Amino acid sequence: MSARAHTKQWRAGVLGATGMVGQRLVKLLSDHPWFELTAVAASERSTGKTYAEATRWHLEGPIPERARGLVVKDLDPSLDCDFVFSALDSSVAGEAEEQFARNGYPVVSNCKNHRMDPDVPLLIPEVNSSHVNSIPVQQKNRGYDSGFIVTNPNCSTAGLVLVLKPLADAFGMEKLFVVTMQAVSGAGYPGVPSLDALGNVIPYIGGEEEKMEAEPQKLLGKWDGHRFIDAGLGISAHCNRVPVVDGHLECVSVRLKKTATISEVREALRTFEVSEELASLPTALKHPVVVHDGEDRPQPRKDANTGHGMAAVVGRVRECPLLDVKLTLLSHNLLRGAAGAALLNAELLAARGFLKSRKAEPSEVEQATR
Amino acid sequence: MSARAHTKQWRAGVLGATGMVGQRLVKLLSDHPWFELTAVAASERSTGKTYAEATRWHLEGPIPERARGLVVKDLDPSLDCDFVFSALDSSVAGEAEEQFARNGYPVVSNCKNHRMDPDVPLLIPEVNSSHVNSIPVQQKNRGYDSGFIVTNPNCSTAGLVLVLKPLADAFGMEKLFVVTMQAVSGAGYPGVPSLDALGNVIPYIGGEEEKMEAEPQKLLGKWDGHRFIDAGLGISAHCNRVPVVDGHLECVSVRLKKTATISEVREALRTFEVSEELASLPTALKHPVVVHDGEDRPQPRKDANTGHGMAAVVGRVRECPLLDVKLTLLSHNLLRGAAGAALLNAELLAARGFLKSRKAEPSEVEQATR
Amino acid sequence: MSARAHTKQWRAGVLGATGMVGQRLVKLLSDHPWFELTAVAASERSTGKTYAEATRWHLEGPIPERARGLVVKDLDPSLDCDFVFSALDSSVAGEAEEQFARNGYPVVSNCKNHRMDPDVPLLIPEVNSSHVNSIPVQQKNRGYDSGFIVTNPNCSTAGLVLVLKPLADAFGMEKLFVVTMQAVSGAGYPGVPSLDALGNVIPYIGGEEEKMEAEPQKLLGKWDGHRFIDAGLGISAHCNRVPVVDGHLECVSVRLKKTATISEVREALRTFEVSEELASLPTALKHPVVVHDGEDRPQPRKDANTGHGMAAVVGRVRECPLLDVKLTLLSHNLLRGAAGAALLNAELLAARGFLKSRKAEPSEVEQATR
Amino acid sequence: MSARAHTKQWRAGVLGATGMVGQRLVKLLSDHPWFELTAVAASERSTGKTYAEATRWHLEGPIPERARGLVVKDLDPSLDCDFVFSALDSSVAGEAEEQFARNGYPVVSNCKNHRMDPDVPLLIPEVNSSHVNSIPVQQKNRGYDSGFIVTNPNCSTAGLVLVLKPLADAFGMEKLFVVTMQAVSGAGYPGVPSLDALGNVIPYIGGEEEKMEAEPQKLLGKWDGHRFIDAGLGISAHCNRVPVVDGHLECVSVRLKKTATISEVREALRTFEVSEELASLPTALKHPVVVHDGEDRPQPRKDANTGHGMAAVVGRVRECPLLDVKLTLLSHNLLRGAAGAALLNAELLAARGFLKSRKAEPSEVEQATR
Repeated sequence: MSARAHTKQWRAGVLGATGMVGQRLVKLLSDHPWFELTAVAASERSTGKTYAEATRWHLEGPIPERARGLVVKDLDPSLDCDFVFSALDSSVAGEAEEQFARNGYPVVSNCKNHRMDPDVPLLIPEVNSSHVNSIPVQQKNRGYDSGFIVTNPNCSTAGLVLVLKPLADAFGMEKLFVVTMQAVSGAGYPGVPSLDALGNVIPYIGGEEEKMEAEPQKLLGKWDGHRFIDAGLGISAHCNRVPVVDGHLECVSVRLKKTATISEVREALRTFEVSEELASLPTALKHPVVVHDGEDRPQPRKDANTGHGMAAVVGRVRECPLLDVKLTLLSHNLLRGAAGAALLNAELLAARGFLKSRKAEPSEVEQATR
Repeated sequence: MSARAHTKQWRAGVLGATGMVGQRLVKLLSDHPWFELTAVAASERSTGKTYAEATRWHLEGPIPERARGLVVKDLDPSLDCDFVFSALDSSVAGEAEEQFARNGYPVVSNCKNHRMDPDVPLLIPEVNSSHVNSIPVQQKNRGYDSGFIVTNPNCSTAGLVLVLKPLADAFGMEKLFVVTMQAVSGAGYPGVPSLDALGNVIPYIGGEEEKMEAEPQKLLGKWDGHRFIDAGLGISAHCNRVPVVDGHLECVSVRLKKTATISEVREALRTFEVSEELASLPTALKHPVVVHDGEDRPQPRKDANTGHGMAAVVGRVRECPLLDVKLTLLSHNLLRGAAGAALLNAELLAARGFLKSRKAEPSEVEQATR
Repeated sequence: MSARAHTKQWRAGVLGATGMVGQRLVKLLSDHPWFELTAVAASERSTGKTYAEATRWHLEGPIPERARGLVVKDLDPSLDCDFVFSALDSSVAGEAEEQFARNGYPVVSNCKNHRMDPDVPLLIPEVNSSHVNSIPVQQKNRGYDSGFIVTNPNCSTAGLVLVLKPLADAFGMEKLFVVTMQAVSGAGYPGVPSLDALGNVIPYIGGEEEKMEAEPQKLLGKWDGHRFIDAGLGISAHCNRVPVVDGHLECVSVRLKKTATISEVREALRTFEVSEELASLPTALKHPVVVHDGEDRPQPRKDANTGHGMAAVVGRVRECPLLDVKLTLLSHNLLRGAAGAALLNAELLAARGFLKSRKAEPSEVEQATR
Repeated sequence: MSARAHTKQWRAGVLGATGMVGQRLVKLLSDHPWFELTAVAASERSTGKTYAEATRWHLEGPIPERARGLVVKDLDPSLDCDFVFSALDSSVAGEAEEQFARNGYPVVSNCKNHRMDPDVPLLIPEVNSSHVNSIPVQQKNRGYDSGFIVTNPNCSTAGLVLVLKPLADAFGMEKLFVVTMQAVSGAGYPGVPSLDALGNVIPYIGGEEEKMEAEPQKLLGKWDGHRFIDAGLGISAHCNRVPVVDGHLECVSVRLKKTATISEVREALRTFEVSEELASLPTALKHPVVVHDGEDRPQPRKDANTGHGMAAVVGRVRECPLLDVKLTLLSHNLLRGAAGAALLNAELLAARGFLKSRKAEPSEVEQATR
């Protein structure tokens, strides 16, 4: 199935389009080969305005032309699109996503609310693409017709698990320590006050350690046709906020199941390669794990955009005196960890036939969004 | 022995007085009740100038009046003082400190060179004050007469071990993980370029992890009358540089020997109290470990000066899913981790009779430094 | 009138006590020789809680013991105190301050609302202490009995005018350019989002340029017994927010009325000295303008606390190719520019007999605040 | 003359290729349609190594493949190229550039040394392209054969003059104030220590104010066939270093010769458009001045890359109480202010026939750099 065949085949909506992650999605969709942004929705404060009026734009460059004039709708599940991304605040995401799914919309969510639901895939295509097979069970369980919910992990979990995957495949994995140094953009806008962030580190992010200790179990676990089987890892996480704009840095120590030399570990990371199917997705990288040889890398400000922000960059792979391997990893929290993650999930769903392009013909799309 | 009895009884010199740690020492000595700054020495570039001319002063407030006019000497062991602090660069510290010791000067060093020598105490008074008993052995080994070398640990080790001490005392300790987020002042001046530090984290500090994995073994070990017995801990350290001015933050997970509840651990930290002897030292705190109850503390910019920068501040004491206890700790890298550490060591040495006040009578001191 | 005579003679309340400026006032009052903090008030969200419960404390060290247990009251003008400081948000300050004044409370305000009122003094004791003579006129105009309102200037105006004063006195002044680089603490908490502040400058602060172009006219003008006569200066201000925690830096170019050499200008700044009366106020400095000789000073992080944050630090006094003199100045926005300014105003009012200590005897005070 | 016609027609060398500006040039040249990088030279420390070995790379993404293997030469004027860019340190640039010019190389310099020479053009193509006509006079004066020196202005002058140009054209200009807030990348690497930059502003940059007060006179002046006639502007500059990575922000107040409304001024800026000839240069923008309507823009971190870093972004155009117009402007100090400026100058020189492509045929180029 070639990219050309998909051209603008699906119409996408974005729930929570005015927030930090929503803006990234709007930007990424503006020149996406398969998806066309046809609807934006947000909390009541913004509805009725155009997207340009409603949005305090945080990204480099202007608001994409395609999005500027779209009228921001409320969260009623009657948007003119074939599926929705959800970048809603967690206070409203849970129910809104269910309503959209119940009304026939595939929901590709970045929100935490349904991640650990027993019938909702928590998905990183390069890690556990087979988990999409849980979707029919979810639909049956919940009485959804064509709608369903798929989620991506928490921003600090995404990069971690992507790096753990080749190690788990090659050597098995028992347990790990991880300490994060997370960028302020992960807290949204206005998010972290500058009086807290400037020249400081905040050694606490509400709920983050719990997510990092739980989500990898599901991501690295298995869907057995009926339910998700946890990976059974021991995980201990400490999460910190540092005065960095974009890019979560993580110090990790890992105990493997099989003995491996450091150079075998480095090789497993360096040669990690996705399948042909995945590599053909527009947002995917053939090699999503990049090993940096600099002794003082990866660094957030210099390396977060590696692979258009979709790579996990690994450095300082070395022996751990307590477990087996120590390393440092970095991933872009808003791309690999949020908007890019959701986009890649949607691409996988499209490639696997989970997204139906509804009624619309091109001319209708044009009219609908004029 | 009262503080009054000691008044200005000892004349101190500072080697490396123009650097970051040297400046802190000069400032701390300017109103010290026991020690009078009578000599400053530095690398050749500065010698012959007054201290005010030779120094790019980094601290708040002006250069202390007492120090301004002192002429900076070279590293020849003929300074007019009863003992010296060494805050030299490690490229010259090793030999210079030996020369001073050989020429009869007690050397209270902040440098790494002799820390792990088998007959040199690596000293934190609140942790292992009995290690000073190795001094006579050192003098005999090396043929030193009245001189000797005493060292304090690396800046990131100091706060860590101070917090481990009450836990090791109460419950025993097997192993620990530590990830540091260290302030730029720890790298000296000019140190870390702003192009590397701004909005960034550098996941590497040369030699730091090795120090953190080695020094606690000696600090928490024992002097058996002949040699130092390692504590036999398993330690794994990751060290990072963050854009913070002062204060090293550390995320720690610990395996204890005895089972303990979190509230027992917190209590052991909270009630940690030094002996009467130590509490009477001018720079000592009765309770050098401070437990902060805020869920997002300690924070470097807000808490590094706790206890005049001599406290280790602990927060977020909680269960670790892999080991037993997780916590976050903070200490001021230039005070508890360097200048204050050396000063406290000198005070202990004075109190225990290891510092002899030479020839000088007050009037002579006045003349010598006029 | 000695400090001793005043000891804890007046009971002070703080309106807006939980905000950034309010916290500074609470801290400054905790060891003030004349004033005792007996009441705190704030917006409705906080009322009924103790001060410790209601406040997210931003300052180094703990909340002062004296303040912790005070119950936060609402803005009803029935507080148990002899006068109030107002650090309220401007959305409520205007009316609240009038109500307190009408009910007999002297109001020492940091808020902008009444600064430019034709019968309210805008006061910097070192600059225009005679403006307090407008108070009886204000009371008569407004039918206030013993209450009245006195204000201090905007945080960026305070340091500027303090530096202009000796120049205006010595040489006269025609016009000036000023460009500010202001600290984030000037925007309160949460204030400036870190996503805007990190590694960035925001070239706009709402309403700030207007204040800086208007307030100096009144401050450097005269009270003629009936009304304030503007100084008639030409002023152009550009205001910027920089990623600095505390301390507003300002680049100024000035046209004087009389010809003066640069060394005469520097001398006028250096020798500026307040009267005996002012020098005896607890918060006053004998020399509130400090000239720093370093070619790259003043710098906010290093110099903002000069003179306990009550000095204006001047550097780089040099010729201006367009006007006469160029210089850079710095003052602490929360001390000289807000809380310290208000405190000094209150001290002047006390010294001049404008604050009456009401009914209270010590024992009553104790009971009232237990 | 189409871009195609020029394809890789000239072989470029970079002097000072390992520094901050040199790296930007190397990167910009890596995909330039006209110029091929065939030689890199630097100070002695680096010579003999490959560019990849000699360079501590500071830019996003890897070192361009084309440059990695080039052997770094010393500053001997025998490089294999048709012209050179000079990004040398000013301590060696003066003489080295003369030697290259004397040996037949056109030198396109970013260095300050020859900027104010009476026969060297200080060039911004959009501002004073006719100044290239001084080149034959320079060659005659100095006895250069085909070589010559052309310079671009200081990084903070570049953006300023670009914005002044349309105002000078439309209304004439008498005088101006400018206060800069300059990024740390302008100081090179290691440049500003983080201990000075973090949470701070440094109100001094050596020599910068002098450059800003002198260079615009030449840039906005005229070449009369024999010499440069100054623009005769009154200029006063204050220069500051702020903790920003890239992008110099400037607050400017201007006195025009003709009366103009603010909307006329804004219109003159907005409609400023370069000639067809200039617009066809690969690095040029049709509209190099971009007016941003946001009330708090331009901001360095968000807007410095506007127009690939070659635009000057203007905001907050408003009345000045003292002069006529106030505005804020931003330009990328390493692109518009250095590497991009030099590249654009070279493109103009190429388009006007000042660069001769020497002997080399494509196959030879390939060999020379293999």
